[in-house]
Amino acid sequence: MADVSELLRAGSGVELASIDTAGTPGMPASRRVSQDPKAWARAELTGIGAELARQQEMLFANAKSDPADQRRVLLVLQAMDCGGKDGTVKRVSRAMNPQGLRITAFGPPTAEERQHDFLWRVRRALPLPGYVGIFNRSHYEDVLVARVRELVPPRVWKARYEKINAFERELVDSGFSLVKVMLHISYDEQRKRLLERLDEPTKHWKYNPDDVDNRAFWPAYQQAYQDAISRCGTDHAPWHVVPADRKWYRDWAVAQLVLGALRRLELSYPPPGFDPQTERKRLERDEAGRAGKVNVR
Amino acid sequence: MADVSELLRAGSGVELASIDTAGTPGMPASRRVSQDPKAWARAELTGIGAELARQQEMLFANAKSDPADQRRVLLVLQAMDCGGKDGTVKRVSRAMNPQGLRITAFGPPTAEERQHDFLWRVRRALPLPGYVGIFNRSHYEDVLVARVRELVPPRVWKARYEKINAFERELVDSGFSLVKVMLHISYDEQRKRLLERLDEPTKHWKYNPDDVDNRAFWPAYQQAYQDAISRCGTDHAPWHVVPADRKWYRDWAVAQLVLGALRRLELSYPPPGFDPQTERKRLERDEAGRAGKVNVR
Repeated sequence: MADVSELLRAGSGVELASIDTAGTPGMPASRRVSQDPKAWARAELTGIGAELARQQEMLFANAKSDPADQRRVLLVLQAMDCGGKDGTVKRVSRAMNPQGLRITAFGPPTAEERQHDFLWRVRRALPLPGYVGIFNRSHYEDVLVARVRELVPPRVWKARYEKINAFERELVDSGFSLVKVMLHISYDEQRKRLLERLDEPTKHWKYNPDDVDNRAFWPAYQQAYQDAISRCGTDHAPWHVVPADRKWYRDWAVAQLVLGALRRLELSYPPPGFDPQTERKRLERDEAGRAGKVNVR
Repeated sequence: MADVSELLRAGSGVELASIDTAGTPGMPASRRVSQDPKAWARAELTGIGAELARQQEMLFANAKSDPADQRRVLLVLQAMDCGGKDGTVKRVSRAMNPQGLRITAFGPPTAEERQHDFLWRVRRALPLPGYVGIFNRSHYEDVLVARVRELVPPRVWKARYEKINAFERELVDSGFSLVKVMLHISYDEQRKRLLERLDEPTKHWKYNPDDVDNRAFWPAYQQAYQDAISRCGTDHAPWHVVPADRKWYRDWAVAQLVLGALRRLELSYPPPGFDPQTERKRLERDEAGRAGKVNVR
């Protein structure tokens, strides 16, 4: 099977308009797959999930056993409205141990956050060693919405690309594996999903009339994404553009990307810091606490 | 079916020694259940999980739609070593949306945490409105290990019960539903689980030789738990003692307790803050962003 990470990687010179949002790059070409690609991808995701859980546990175990082990993984998800960020977080994280996950959704900055540099709130949400972090939106909003909706002057957002690259370099140097993903949907797919939210009363709370107004800025957003990916798709922290009109492909592909990052760490369970035989003997004869009344004040 | 929350509730005068750690209170007495209680409980948990997810989404939707809605749920888990806290977190939270969960595991206080009041780190980990929080250990450690291992003088831990009650009163008054649970295992079950960790190399990282030394303090810990439950099992924030030798019962019971807390909120999906018909029309004729080249600097 082709390396999905290589196939989806994007950087300098990326052209979003030339990437098919309904594509399924990296899926095997066998007849079994092509007959029902959705069923295949959903079944595969279950298997990937089990392996993700095992890898995550090893990551956690290593950090717990060795305080010098700073390794951790951070998935950064960006997308247009309705691009599927929430769904991806849910599906990809389901298999993992929620206790070893640190998920942060970034909304419009609060009054406190606006008083700080744009990376301040991002630094506070970084996962500790041994954890898998997921950012639902991220510091990239500060070169996307901030640029398109003119929340800051051009000289401010233009200076941010370099700051982001330096920040991510620092993260990688301190043990982070970064998996940066743009979920790429089409203009028509966004409309379809907005209409679905209107059709279903239990989804009304997710619908925001501003999203329709925002559609007028679609080309500007695409341009802003393209520039962010082009300027911040580095060797140490590459971007990936995941075609996301098909949810089953999207989930499969993102899970593969996270799993790939974990596998590249070549993790194993840490050796015990004790002698199992000695411990077994201690436990087998241990009766100290059974009947004894320890004096408690 | 009996109300599990009522059956497991514990407070003033609780006697842990008289509660069967292998019991299954609240499980229906039908033949189908008694023939294979484990299979029944595991199947039930799946159904409870789906309902937990729905309730959690409504809680989240309400908080998102109405900033004045401060409701949130906090599960506080306490147990002896190997009592099953990690497993319970995993099983109970699996069905829920990880994005709406805020899970915190409290370890020994860090240098920074020790410079503050014992509730400081707990306050910082509280879930925001709309979230379900889970505490794996909690402020109760400060009247458990702190007392048994004499980390502070008696006058200090003795003063904490009242502080905890006042703190929890404050939480409930600001929209929290508290679900406090002690997972209750036997001395022999703990030994069995420690031996299992020794048998399985992939579990060695969870084994800590100190846990064996700690077994000598078993009666003191039981006394400390009993006093904490007795003194802090209040009407506004009751304690529950869940027999936890059988993992399938434990998971089923804790999921029931959390679901009960959510149901008592009588949640529904919030009404839309827009007119769906108007929005539909706007979307259907919307072509603003398709071809148009928005000027981007």
